[in-house]
Amino acid sequence: MTLPRAVRIVEVGPRDGLQNEAQPVPVAVKVELIERLAAAGLTAIEAGSFVSPKWVPQMASSAEVMAAITRCPGVSYPVLVPNLQGLEQALAAGAADIAVFAAASESFSKKNINCTIAESLDRFAPVIDKALAAGLVVRGYVSCVLGCPYEGDIAAEAVADVARRLLDMGCAEISLGDTIGTGTPGKAQALIETVAARVPVERLAAHFHDTYGQALANIFAVMEKGVAAVDSSVAGLGGCPYAKGASGNVATEDVVYMLNGLGITTGIDLDKLVQAGDFICRELGRTTESKFARAKGCAMISG
Amino acid sequence: MTLPRAVRIVEVGPRDGLQNEAQPVPVAVKVELIERLAAAGLTAIEAGSFVSPKWVPQMASSAEVMAAITRCPGVSYPVLVPNLQGLEQALAAGAADIAVFAAASESFSKKNINCTIAESLDRFAPVIDKALAAGLVVRGYVSCVLGCPYEGDIAAEAVADVARRLLDMGCAEISLGDTIGTGTPGKAQALIETVAARVPVERLAAHFHDTYGQALANIFAVMEKGVAAVDSSVAGLGGCPYAKGASGNVATEDVVYMLNGLGITTGIDLDKLVQAGDFICRELGRTTESKFARAKGCAMISG
Repeated sequence: MTLPRAVRIVEVGPRDGLQNEAQPVPVAVKVELIERLAAAGLTAIEAGSFVSPKWVPQMASSAEVMAAITRCPGVSYPVLVPNLQGLEQALAAGAADIAVFAAASESFSKKNINCTIAESLDRFAPVIDKALAAGLVVRGYVSCVLGCPYEGDIAAEAVADVARRLLDMGCAEISLGDTIGTGTPGKAQALIETVAARVPVERLAAHFHDTYGQALANIFAVMEKGVAAVDSSVAGLGGCPYAKGASGNVATEDVVYMLNGLGITTGIDLDKLVQAGDFICRELGRTTESKFARAKGCAMISG
Repeated sequence: MTLPRAVRIVEVGPRDGLQNEAQPVPVAVKVELIERLAAAGLTAIEAGSFVSPKWVPQMASSAEVMAAITRCPGVSYPVLVPNLQGLEQALAAGAADIAVFAAASESFSKKNINCTIAESLDRFAPVIDKALAAGLVVRGYVSCVLGCPYEGDIAAEAVADVARRLLDMGCAEISLGDTIGTGTPGKAQALIETVAARVPVERLAAHFHDTYGQALANIFAVMEKGVAAVDSSVAGLGGCPYAKGASGNVATEDVVYMLNGLGITTGIDLDKLVQAGDFICRELGRTTESKFARAKGCAMISG
């Protein structure tokens, strides 16, 4: 069990983090957040989503955001794409990276995207084909990998099936999402072992929610199994739509602090990252969910 | 790296958790908290402290609390004892378990208890002798094991030296405290390896603070190294005196949730534990620091 020497952080704050905000976040604020994150050294920043504005009004400005950001060399700005129409919009917006999203739970798939898992994968096949033909990089999300709000436990084999299908369809990376945050480290390790038997572990990313406080322990545990890509959200933006008022995405600051302590390279400047989190928290008028940022923001007693 | 099959939780909420509360907590509230924790299955509950009320006014009622609690068979109610006078008070209060506290940092020792580490150990020697002669069980705390608010990094060998001295003096268990919460999992594992070369790992307990969000990851990491005793505080009571407004003690609820998920026996009823946390939070008029309790207290969307 040797830990990876470097970990790639995929920052999901500007999309997954903001998408459930009730009040519209101005384009200029989203742009400044994305640019601050890039300046902090993040190399993958989810910048928006081309799902229907009917479903996710907060993301209706994604094309404007994509047009306004100054793109840094070496940084990817993936956008979520649900279908061919969304792909057209992403291409028109100049996206070089897209993400598609499937679930490991049939009930969740039906409630979230109104189709079975198999139907969702069939729907994504031409989207991915066309994206690959256009030279895009495609990421696949699998949700509910350690539990479903409707079904409870989810079999690791079911996760592996969906992950393998997404790989075969052409996804470069599969992000395994503990959507409701109920996972614990042993189950997370067992999941990775099962999925890694079907999908090379180098192609897997871990997307843990901190709803039950388990995210960092789970990230440490799956890194012991070789996972070297981690999704997180600056300031822990996002909350948990399945437990109102509870926390959701793990805070990027806390992940980076842990990785720094472990001697694992991320290329991220933690001070600048904290400033980016502070910026968006002030804009949203809320308190950070990052414990690292909270501790740093508090008066330290000095000698 | 096999995890322990059972972990003993040492609940520090009623002492370490409450001691920095500015407003006096009524004896009846402390008693109800302790009794609720025992009813939830905790078998070690720090019940008070016989340090001078000048220094820790909140603990001035410890004798009253010890007199009022109904003691459950199989449950220990340790009290903190700084010197022979404190030991006399603890004996008068019918304590069967005491704890003494040293630091691994010279600067912290001087600022916190106004003497060098060596002086503090010399001072504890007759206290421990007398306690053992009276049939008491003695626990030793070592603070600043992964960092000091004044010195920064602390050498693991310095921690091992103090831990070994406390063991030789007769302590049954040595609790290693990451007082400022800066530790990360790899350093925590390395610390345990160093200390365990001098003190049997069965005699070690882990006391992590969640100030930087690292506590559960650290607990998981040190369990991989054989640690099977963990200190925690219901509802995360305690805060961090070195970063006002930041969190301190890891929440017992979140630890138990993780251990349950790992299949590790604790003997604790998580529902009753959450109720105990809810009780004290209502009494103190504050929000729980337990993410598990927050998620459980929030409306869950059901099918």
